[in-house]
Amino acid sequence: MEKGALLYEGKAKMVYTTDEASIVWIEYKDAATAYNGEKKASIIGKGRLNNEITSLLFTKLKEMGIDSHFIKRISENEQLVKKVDIIPLETVVRNYAAGSFSKRLGMEEGKVLKRPIVEFYYKDDALGDPILTEDHIEVMALASKEEVAILKEKALQVNEVLSEFFKELGIRLVDFKLEFGKDETGAILLADEISPDTCRFWDMETNEKLDKDVFRRDLGSLTDAYENILARLGGKLHV
Amino acid sequence: MEKGALLYEGKAKMVYTTDEASIVWIEYKDAATAYNGEKKASIIGKGRLNNEITSLLFTKLKEMGIDSHFIKRISENEQLVKKVDIIPLETVVRNYAAGSFSKRLGMEEGKVLKRPIVEFYYKDDALGDPILTEDHIEVMALASKEEVAILKEKALQVNEVLSEFFKELGIRLVDFKLEFGKDETGAILLADEISPDTCRFWDMETNEKLDKDVFRRDLGSLTDAYENILARLGGKLHV
Repeated sequence: MEKGALLYEGKAKMVYTTDEASIVWIEYKDAATAYNGEKKASIIGKGRLNNEITSLLFTKLKEMGIDSHFIKRISENEQLVKKVDIIPLETVVRNYAAGSFSKRLGMEEGKVLKRPIVEFYYKDDALGDPILTEDHIEVMALASKEEVAILKEKALQVNEVLSEFFKELGIRLVDFKLEFGKDETGAILLADEISPDTCRFWDMETNEKLDKDVFRRDLGSLTDAYENILARLGGKLHV
Repeated sequence: MEKGALLYEGKAKMVYTTDEASIVWIEYKDAATAYNGEKKASIIGKGRLNNEITSLLFTKLKEMGIDSHFIKRISENEQLVKKVDIIPLETVVRNYAAGSFSKRLGMEEGKVLKRPIVEFYYKDDALGDPILTEDHIEVMALASKEEVAILKEKALQVNEVLSEFFKELGIRLVDFKLEFGKDETGAILLADEISPDTCRFWDMETNEKLDKDVFRRDLGSLTDAYENILARLGGKLHV
């Protein structure tokens, strides 16, 4: 497999073509951003950590019957994935109140929700990724009613698998963000990454934050937190 | 009927008890506020205008089979209504993109939506009335799933009646906000007011704004705009 032209540069990843039209080459960057890009830093090792953690988690999901775009990890900070057209929605699952959710709704951080809830945000940096209702998604033609139902179902399946899995590692899965895309047949496939950039992970004993909130809120070393997650996963999984 | 003690003072209205436990006495104030109370003014005549317009519209809705808390207008700026416990949700119906909706979702003001949509906002000044999904409403126990379905159904019925009615008066009903309450039997009843404070009314020919946006955006005389609405209604209705 040959790495081709740069297709797209995001905040945390670069996407390149390959010599196979249906496969793209992802390079994880050593960049941390928060608050819609207002806070930024370069953090050596972050790309490797998220590439490894994402590879392990997509592999775990595959074992549990949940497909994704992930094909394989090919270097410390690179992986191959199926090419999909990303649906411009962030699909967020929440088990506990935290972050913007807590603030927006006046709910104490850490409060358990009586059931997991799924939220959708419009992937649009200029608008600050506003929250959407299902009616908004339909009226804006971002996805059909049926597609939204699929996103919700898949997101809750991922939540069930990952919540249980992280519990065994002593970690509370507080919330996380997924992205989905459509492959050449129009099928909806889990895409993007699953990492401490896109999840809130709290140590079950100490409530220590082991995710991007360490960076957002200046709570210490981001790489220490991400290494902690990788170490706990590494004891269980190998890719 | 005797006016009793002050029960509650809102931004635009005072609510008093009466000698009948199930009835309250509403006094419309000459106060205009916008942007969650950040912009305020005292505007002589506004209380009378909103009291008259609300009385006419609740009477029209009643004729069309849609009940509300409204009993009768008793003076220029007062009316009697059934006492209800207000559900802490603002129920918004939108036919066209405008205001915060346009801004939040990057949609041009005046764009027609392919169907009317209903949104819910949490009535909480300290939080700035955040938008809620139906999952939020359920998880926060603000209303049950069944109650939310009733609110949506009633809001769309009101929209059908009022959109048609205002069309005959040469006015486009762009969007509006409703509030609902529960009476002593637990039944959900349309409440609060329906006025240029709570609706966007645009002249169909000129697109002139005949509602609170005149105040929000400093477009001219608020009372001229509200008098225009009242005059068009007055040609059709009497209370």
